[in-house]
Amino acid sequence: MGDVTVLVEADLRDLIGLGADELAAIDAVYPIVSRGEGSMPPIMSLDVAAHHGEVDVKAAYLPGYDGIAVKVSAGFFDNPSRGLPSLGGLMIVLDATTGVPAAALFDNGYLTDLRTALAGAVAARHLARPDASVVGVVGAGLQARLQLEALRLVRPVTSVRVWARRPDAAAGYAAWAAEDLGVDAVAVSTPADVVTAGGIVVTTTPATEPLLDETSLRPGVHVTAIGADAPGKRELSTGLLRAADRVVVDRRNQSLTLGELRAAVADGFDVAAAIELGEVIAGTAPGRTGPDDVTVCDLTGTGAQDTAIAALAVSRARQVGRGTVIAT
Amino acid sequence: MGDVTVLVEADLRDLIGLGADELAAIDAVYPIVSRGEGSMPPIMSLDVAAHHGEVDVKAAYLPGYDGIAVKVSAGFFDNPSRGLPSLGGLMIVLDATTGVPAAALFDNGYLTDLRTALAGAVAARHLARPDASVVGVVGAGLQARLQLEALRLVRPVTSVRVWARRPDAAAGYAAWAAEDLGVDAVAVSTPADVVTAGGIVVTTTPATEPLLDETSLRPGVHVTAIGADAPGKRELSTGLLRAADRVVVDRRNQSLTLGELRAAVADGFDVAAAIELGEVIAGTAPGRTGPDDVTVCDLTGTGAQDTAIAALAVSRARQVGRGTVIAT
Repeated sequence: MGDVTVLVEADLRDLIGLGADELAAIDAVYPIVSRGEGSMPPIMSLDVAAHHGEVDVKAAYLPGYDGIAVKVSAGFFDNPSRGLPSLGGLMIVLDATTGVPAAALFDNGYLTDLRTALAGAVAARHLARPDASVVGVVGAGLQARLQLEALRLVRPVTSVRVWARRPDAAAGYAAWAAEDLGVDAVAVSTPADVVTAGGIVVTTTPATEPLLDETSLRPGVHVTAIGADAPGKRELSTGLLRAADRVVVDRRNQSLTLGELRAAVADGFDVAAAIELGEVIAGTAPGRTGPDDVTVCDLTGTGAQDTAIAALAVSRARQVGRGTVIAT
Repeated sequence: MGDVTVLVEADLRDLIGLGADELAAIDAVYPIVSRGEGSMPPIMSLDVAAHHGEVDVKAAYLPGYDGIAVKVSAGFFDNPSRGLPSLGGLMIVLDATTGVPAAALFDNGYLTDLRTALAGAVAARHLARPDASVVGVVGAGLQARLQLEALRLVRPVTSVRVWARRPDAAAGYAAWAAEDLGVDAVAVSTPADVVTAGGIVVTTTPATEPLLDETSLRPGVHVTAIGADAPGKRELSTGLLRAADRVVVDRRNQSLTLGELRAAVADGFDVAAAIELGEVIAGTAPGRTGPDDVTVCDLTGTGAQDTAIAALAVSRARQVGRGTVIAT
């Protein structure tokens, strides 16, 4: 029926990273999603309880994109005992006009890590103070690192404050940030200590109870919550959302089921008070209105981001002839 | 992370077909599903209205199987004007213990055609009269042909009666059946004319209004409905289901949303009167109890069948070293 381009993680790491074009590709999808264009079904979730695993599938069609990404994400939590990472996955790209398979990206989750980091940068670009230079990070894993790197694309980051459950992990993160990124870095002793007036905060943990509440807030801060992506997870208190001048989400119905709005709305938070990031980007809803506004953005991750990053990866691979082409 | 075996349609056509082992593989999944073992989320459906297309994703984990199939099916109805088939797709197989990608089967829908035909044979094996030799077929497309071929695995088929909306299609089908399969074949002028006492009927159309009602039934007949797989489709009247001695479905919740039970239950048919094929196979619910029973089976197609057929295909490919192996 056609040719399928097969790319593996090493190909993708060479082809695509935390760059300006990648940022623009992710920035572009939010207004499309918020206008209700294209289509993005609810996430499919397959439980593999016998092996402490879960398989999630996301997919999105976006008008104007040549491809439709179908992403299969796997989380198998016994893997570390086998010397394998817990998280993995792949993406399939179908031709958007014919449905014929066009590419298979065996990225082991790399593209998801990337588009999640870029989403944090997009949120900060549209919501943080233009002069925000101090980043507070909660959590010290891979995504915590990628978020800091991505924020440097959009704000003049000079220093980072990090908290993690394990102090040695926070210390390791601070050492990495100082050495590899050349920013001032300090590990702090409570999550609230990462917050600074006028700064940016990114939360990247699998927490199920709030790590930050309204008493942590400082004037002008912007908070992006990355961690909550499943029922039961949350990083921010309902009081924090109530105290913010603006609460933004990537996709309202996902935040209500998987993200920070889930528990907050159960606590009485008014869902109508939350706007979508795409509305802010498109200028149809207000974002930050002044230097002392407190803004919050909850990112659950969407299939639209996958379709955008996969489209860019496939386009670059074809330009340079990378990958294995298989006739189907 | 590992090696992915990539197989294309030509590989799969050589490796797997309408054989006894394939039949046994499909037969084995129904009791597992009906016992509620493993897991099988609702079908994900992505609408691509701009291109008259739809992408469906099915997935299933079955205990005891090495792989989890995630199947992406594409239906793009402008494709024939481009010289492409409307229906296509692929399957991904993940290692069931680690979630690591194990295989990509670019089968263009071949495995789906196969496991659907085999499901019809499984239904007939457990519900049709042992001596059923006359098959009535409604519809004359690819699946109508495969159903007849598969039925020969389980019953002593000597003749076929076929009806299709286009008389030339029915005539073509009859000629194929006579020539290629060596059975007596006749094209008839109404759907009801395909039904014979003690025979088997298979309906394979995308009809949205019933093609057969209770007046069509004859003593001892078994009817398998294949066509309805989406809201709005149906091939059998509610009266026909009411008149049957036994109504069987592959999966109750799918038949209620996508299959024959949807419209029937809306008409007042008692859902509790329908049993699952897996219960009949396991012997926990009665199937046919006598030669004159009228039995009906509605097949909507399940991810469990995909996981079973994909597992067999991958196992055979590895035995003979077929396919392209890519290190991920």
